[in-house]
Amino acid sequence: MTRGAPAYLRNCWYMAGWSTELCEALLRRRILGEPILLFRTTDGVPAALTDRCPHRFAPLSAGTREGDLVRCPYHGLAFDAAGQCVHNPFSTTLPKGATVRHWTIHERDGIAWIWMGDADKADPALIPDFSTLFRDGADPVRGLMPMRAPYEFATDNLMDLSHIEFVHRGSFAGAGVIFAGEHEVRREGDRLHSNWWMPNVPAPGHTYGIYERGLPTDHWLDMRWDAPASMLLEIGATPAGQPRENGVIIHQAHIITPETAETAHYFWASTRSTGVASEQGDTMLYAMMTQAFEQEDKPIIEAAYANLDGCAFWDAKPAFLGIDAGGTRARRLIEELIGREARAA
Amino acid sequence: MTRGAPAYLRNCWYMAGWSTELCEALLRRRILGEPILLFRTTDGVPAALTDRCPHRFAPLSAGTREGDLVRCPYHGLAFDAAGQCVHNPFSTTLPKGATVRHWTIHERDGIAWIWMGDADKADPALIPDFSTLFRDGADPVRGLMPMRAPYEFATDNLMDLSHIEFVHRGSFAGAGVIFAGEHEVRREGDRLHSNWWMPNVPAPGHTYGIYERGLPTDHWLDMRWDAPASMLLEIGATPAGQPRENGVIIHQAHIITPETAETAHYFWASTRSTGVASEQGDTMLYAMMTQAFEQEDKPIIEAAYANLDGCAFWDAKPAFLGIDAGGTRARRLIEELIGREARAA
Amino acid sequence: MTRGAPAYLRNCWYMAGWSTELCEALLRRRILGEPILLFRTTDGVPAALTDRCPHRFAPLSAGTREGDLVRCPYHGLAFDAAGQCVHNPFSTTLPKGATVRHWTIHERDGIAWIWMGDADKADPALIPDFSTLFRDGADPVRGLMPMRAPYEFATDNLMDLSHIEFVHRGSFAGAGVIFAGEHEVRREGDRLHSNWWMPNVPAPGHTYGIYERGLPTDHWLDMRWDAPASMLLEIGATPAGQPRENGVIIHQAHIITPETAETAHYFWASTRSTGVASEQGDTMLYAMMTQAFEQEDKPIIEAAYANLDGCAFWDAKPAFLGIDAGGTRARRLIEELIGREARAA
Repeated sequence: MTRGAPAYLRNCWYMAGWSTELCEALLRRRILGEPILLFRTTDGVPAALTDRCPHRFAPLSAGTREGDLVRCPYHGLAFDAAGQCVHNPFSTTLPKGATVRHWTIHERDGIAWIWMGDADKADPALIPDFSTLFRDGADPVRGLMPMRAPYEFATDNLMDLSHIEFVHRGSFAGAGVIFAGEHEVRREGDRLHSNWWMPNVPAPGHTYGIYERGLPTDHWLDMRWDAPASMLLEIGATPAGQPRENGVIIHQAHIITPETAETAHYFWASTRSTGVASEQGDTMLYAMMTQAFEQEDKPIIEAAYANLDGCAFWDAKPAFLGIDAGGTRARRLIEELIGREARAA
Repeated sequence: MTRGAPAYLRNCWYMAGWSTELCEALLRRRILGEPILLFRTTDGVPAALTDRCPHRFAPLSAGTREGDLVRCPYHGLAFDAAGQCVHNPFSTTLPKGATVRHWTIHERDGIAWIWMGDADKADPALIPDFSTLFRDGADPVRGLMPMRAPYEFATDNLMDLSHIEFVHRGSFAGAGVIFAGEHEVRREGDRLHSNWWMPNVPAPGHTYGIYERGLPTDHWLDMRWDAPASMLLEIGATPAGQPRENGVIIHQAHIITPETAETAHYFWASTRSTGVASEQGDTMLYAMMTQAFEQEDKPIIEAAYANLDGCAFWDAKPAFLGIDAGGTRARRLIEELIGREARAA
Repeated sequence: MTRGAPAYLRNCWYMAGWSTELCEALLRRRILGEPILLFRTTDGVPAALTDRCPHRFAPLSAGTREGDLVRCPYHGLAFDAAGQCVHNPFSTTLPKGATVRHWTIHERDGIAWIWMGDADKADPALIPDFSTLFRDGADPVRGLMPMRAPYEFATDNLMDLSHIEFVHRGSFAGAGVIFAGEHEVRREGDRLHSNWWMPNVPAPGHTYGIYERGLPTDHWLDMRWDAPASMLLEIGATPAGQPRENGVIIHQAHIITPETAETAHYFWASTRSTGVASEQGDTMLYAMMTQAFEQEDKPIIEAAYANLDGCAFWDAKPAFLGIDAGGTRARRLIEELIGREARAA
């Protein structure tokens, strides 16, 4: 009944950060237990290196930029953006083996994705599409929330939105709107969908300022999941009976990256505009999301994980409810993918 | 020389709390390593459940009371006071296996006792008698002190009151009164007595306001121990040569419950009145106990335990003094009882 | 790739403290993982005992001095400076086995050295000579810095002074003076020397107030190492071409004692005067050393060690630079000495 060593899916794109986070400054972020140094070269190319000098192990992120070189703060070895040592201040010869691991980064949709597996398998086509976040030319509202729980616990939370009725009473929850819904979980290749459909319910919060409060609407919550934990949520509503394309739709990204076996980076974003632009709607949205994620989701996810007292998830024999199908299938699919990866190796 | 897994006596009453602590509110307390939810139903019946929802492990203590039901804060499963799931907001069928462990609670003498072993062996007749705490109809002075040491370290401290002369110089200690005493440790079934008898010594502190200071008295300190660590101390004095029943007597409860292998709940109480009522005596008593337990006992017990640096008690080969007989026999008797329990199972 | 149990060199003098730290008061200091009680008898003799009462394990350092006895704060056993229990307040007989381990202390050059191995091998002749610290009759500037890294990480730092150019930009570093130097590492019995020689460089900081700024000088930095981590640094400069004995010389002690496997006590000192006395020089020296050790060395050493994430030093396969010869040979020599000690046992 104890946690084993974490088995991560390696050949997979993980979100390393928002593109806006990578700049001249040296950013240290732990990903899958590895300390990673993130920065951007003067040409604008994102770079990721293991944040540990191979000489005496100082964090390079505490060093200095010299053009596109990073100089170690301890004895001054300088590394280029590929991780090669290119200057040793105390010798004209470069030390053997003085390289730091370079990690492939690919940017798409304002997100810097990092490949934590075999470099030759890093195919940008595998990056899930989040272009909708920028669909109207406006930047989404964005955040990063540290979480003291393994990343799968956030997936469980997101793939089962029934928690909205209890956890989000103070923010998202309508009056029992989820209870009125139908829930479907569907697999499509290695992608999962966990969708709610709530016909003929009062206009949900994200439409305020556009629809009259109380207007009967058809409301949907469609969650798309890609391994390991990259989720896109479509929140939509139309006047009851109208086609979806006429509706008020916002998109949220929920992308979770393991920091360590027990902690995670929870990146979130939401489109600002809602078909019809509305400052009132945007402001409400931002306040709602901050409250919902930081004050409502985070405490309960962390408390639930801590309450396992170190017992592994399946060893704790969780009782199964129908609403768990999404999270459970995501956990099982990751296990399947890790198994597939092990067999291929 | 390392600590093994803690072996607790299971078929045994542990103090879960003062009866006054169990009410409408949901109280979480860790006992023998288990998170326990304590509350009282609308009929006044005490209830104890494992404080972990069987679905996704949220602490139920963070949830809400609905009549006698406790609703999980995460996805809304509701449990009755017996730990049965009786409502699933997302389905008309109840999830299989969705029960939380129910623990037997029995109240006596203002104390809620919890049975941490086989439910069918939970015999209230085994609860040690602390009725004397309420003997004059007055509530005792009560407290709960968290302790960063295994519970046996508090037992050692209490079964060997010689420490009073050194640890309690600022509070209880008379002028070397313990040195003048005779000490006897006696076993009676599975109960131990560790008693001091100090004839013809100046009136001790608890008699101030009743006896003249300096009056020659016969003074006794009788400690009664029941497994695992439920102790009753009788502190008495009579004018020298008079029978005990004429004396000024107070009773103290010292009841220690393991929180984890390394920490404990130290519950204490003392009768307020002293035969002849005395506000002066009560006030002094309260101040003395607070100082004695929190400022004097707790720091030295915690420092001594920490100073073992993880070495098990017996592995550290403690030097034996005659005054240790009480604590040593209590440790050995618990080992005997745990062995007896293991053989019976 | 995990740390094993620490293997310490035992038959070896470790610095326990500055002589001025040992006095009437009871000082607790953890050395090689052991809690040690340090004090000085009324005759001025230094004493070191294991800081744990053999009865119930209370730290004796929390007790009281009674002449040359130390009385336990818990039950009052009293111990002499040799660790023998000489008084039991509750009996006329002394408890069997109630002794605490006594450790040999020898004072020399204002330093209290402790022998952590076989008492009969404790030969004061093996103590490295630091008499130069007091050479002009003036006390050196002294300090003690706690360090969250194993002691060898401080040795690495000191035996390779090239870090001055990067870590000490804000304090010691001249304008690339180290780059101009020649570096030599030399073994002499079980002693190592790691020496820099920088001919014809501008007068270094420690000469300010004596030499004109910019004066061409020959400058040297000679580090002497004795196991386990007792280092003496000679910082010298002469007007270029003049013999060393005419120069401005200061001496620094850098003596590191393991506190635990992961932490160390870093004792440092520097001579105050510089051949020609100079208040200006002394003040600058003190400010420089405090800044250099606490604000510059300590953070980078601690960050580098933490960045190993529990991986053992050699398992992390450090890249080797020529400048590492000193630290590397010190690590290897300690391993050799530990091996020699094991074979002798």
